[in-house]
Amino acid sequence: MPAIVIHGGAGDLGPDDPASSGEPGAPRVEGVRRACAAGWAVLRAGGSALDAVEAAVRLLEDDPTFNAGTGATLTAAGDVELDASIMDGETLRCGAVAVVKDVRNPISLARAVMERTDHVLLAGPGASSFAREIGVPAWDNARLVTPRQRARWEAARAGAAGSKTGTVGAVARDARGHLAAATSTGGMSMKLPGRVGDTPIVGCGTYADDALAAVSCTGHGERIIQLTLARHAADLVAGGASPMEAAREAAALLGRRVGGQGGLVVVGPRGEVGIAHNTPVMSRAWSQPDGTILAAL
Amino acid sequence: MPAIVIHGGAGDLGPDDPASSGEPGAPRVEGVRRACAAGWAVLRAGGSALDAVEAAVRLLEDDPTFNAGTGATLTAAGDVELDASIMDGETLRCGAVAVVKDVRNPISLARAVMERTDHVLLAGPGASSFAREIGVPAWDNARLVTPRQRARWEAARAGAAGSKTGTVGAVARDARGHLAAATSTGGMSMKLPGRVGDTPIVGCGTYADDALAAVSCTGHGERIIQLTLARHAADLVAGGASPMEAAREAAALLGRRVGGQGGLVVVGPRGEVGIAHNTPVMSRAWSQPDGTILAAL
Repeated sequence: MPAIVIHGGAGDLGPDDPASSGEPGAPRVEGVRRACAAGWAVLRAGGSALDAVEAAVRLLEDDPTFNAGTGATLTAAGDVELDASIMDGETLRCGAVAVVKDVRNPISLARAVMERTDHVLLAGPGASSFAREIGVPAWDNARLVTPRQRARWEAARAGAAGSKTGTVGAVARDARGHLAAATSTGGMSMKLPGRVGDTPIVGCGTYADDALAAVSCTGHGERIIQLTLARHAADLVAGGASPMEAAREAAALLGRRVGGQGGLVVVGPRGEVGIAHNTPVMSRAWSQPDGTILAAL
Repeated sequence: MPAIVIHGGAGDLGPDDPASSGEPGAPRVEGVRRACAAGWAVLRAGGSALDAVEAAVRLLEDDPTFNAGTGATLTAAGDVELDASIMDGETLRCGAVAVVKDVRNPISLARAVMERTDHVLLAGPGASSFAREIGVPAWDNARLVTPRQRARWEAARAGAAGSKTGTVGAVARDARGHLAAATSTGGMSMKLPGRVGDTPIVGCGTYADDALAAVSCTGHGERIIQLTLARHAADLVAGGASPMEAAREAAALLGRRVGGQGGLVVVGPRGEVGIAHNTPVMSRAWSQPDGTILAAL
């Protein structure tokens, strides 16, 4: 059976979380539900897990509610720097970009790195040059900055504690039994320019291997890197844990071993779903075998 | 017992390998022996594994024989872009830099990221800005380019197949039983600007955890990333393999699973040494319990 699981970031909501329908966090739940439905539509039509996770993450990048693409958090220098990665569990091919400032959909650029270069990860100006070479139009950094993130940055500069909201991601299993994972982020609020977190790091923010599982992480990237958390969770599944057990153990380990806050989504080789976080909230959505999409915060 | 293992890169020698003492590869063997002795001197004096691996890798970065620091391979654009990472097995703290063009010793900048920021990885111009902020002087990129690498680049541009020589690294166990790993490289010859390989990626090129092992990898970075090879080798040790068995299994897996060429060095919690490669040569040196340094190609 096909399956897809989405996360819209683990963290806290923050007092300025948009509440368009009157309920705090509502746009986050709506956003991950919409992304999950888009990915599910790809899978239902017989599409690949790779296409499904890319489609879902593109929607989340374009949704200003989430810290990825448009609406990403700002660096200490006050602009947006984006990271993303994608991995194909059938072939172990993977692609990633980091510190990208002028691309609307980093997840699709990561996929282009995977499919159109001999490399896995391109960072900084080199990633932009590659984007131009393959015809991805330059996107003005200012168009990625939302009024809400600009206000948060001004508050953080004035000494306010930053609300931590992370990263978006998707994992899927398609009808042929192949797995894929994709993750995209603006990273940590007020990060140093050039800082790269776990999101574009294969094995840390993202991992997919048909023989193990597909995993996408969110949270405090530096702590996730220390544990190579995505690969660790996938190995737990290979060791006999269910994807739900693996997700819970990985989220618990993140707190216990390195004091990290975060969460992850997992899909196993048979489409079993795992979701866990050790933070106050994590927006997430997942498909049921009958095609129903469930979402929660 | 303290122990240290060095590699000077897995690959082939190439017809232009310097042979100052008349024997092909001799400068490589001499270079890793010297670096190993420097790291061993730190350990013998009661220094930390972290200090030992940094000292050893700095020497290899400054040695024009090796593809790291001075003497690194050139990108397709004809300049040097350096990557490095370091990890402390006692605390799981880690630091890394990528796509650095104006620093003489990237491994020490990686250590500064670990010790003086809240981040793990800084890439591109942001890494340079951080270097300047903490007082690391700018180093002209042209000073990193050796005549031999310039000639190789000219030959590659004219269509010659590039000789693959990778990355330097060190793993150590100190007298207190703590582990550390460090890896540094100029990356793949003729890489796209902005390309990041396994070297600065925690879990791929470098990993250290006192409870598992310390590992430094070399070879085709994109293939090493697909397997998160350093973390995988460390997990094999945790699963009961000796460091030598783990290194051999990891090097074999690299070829078998993803068709990758490379090698790795491993040190276990009790100072046992593991070394393996699936390439024609890998320069390496390692300490014996009595302080003798052995070296081979």
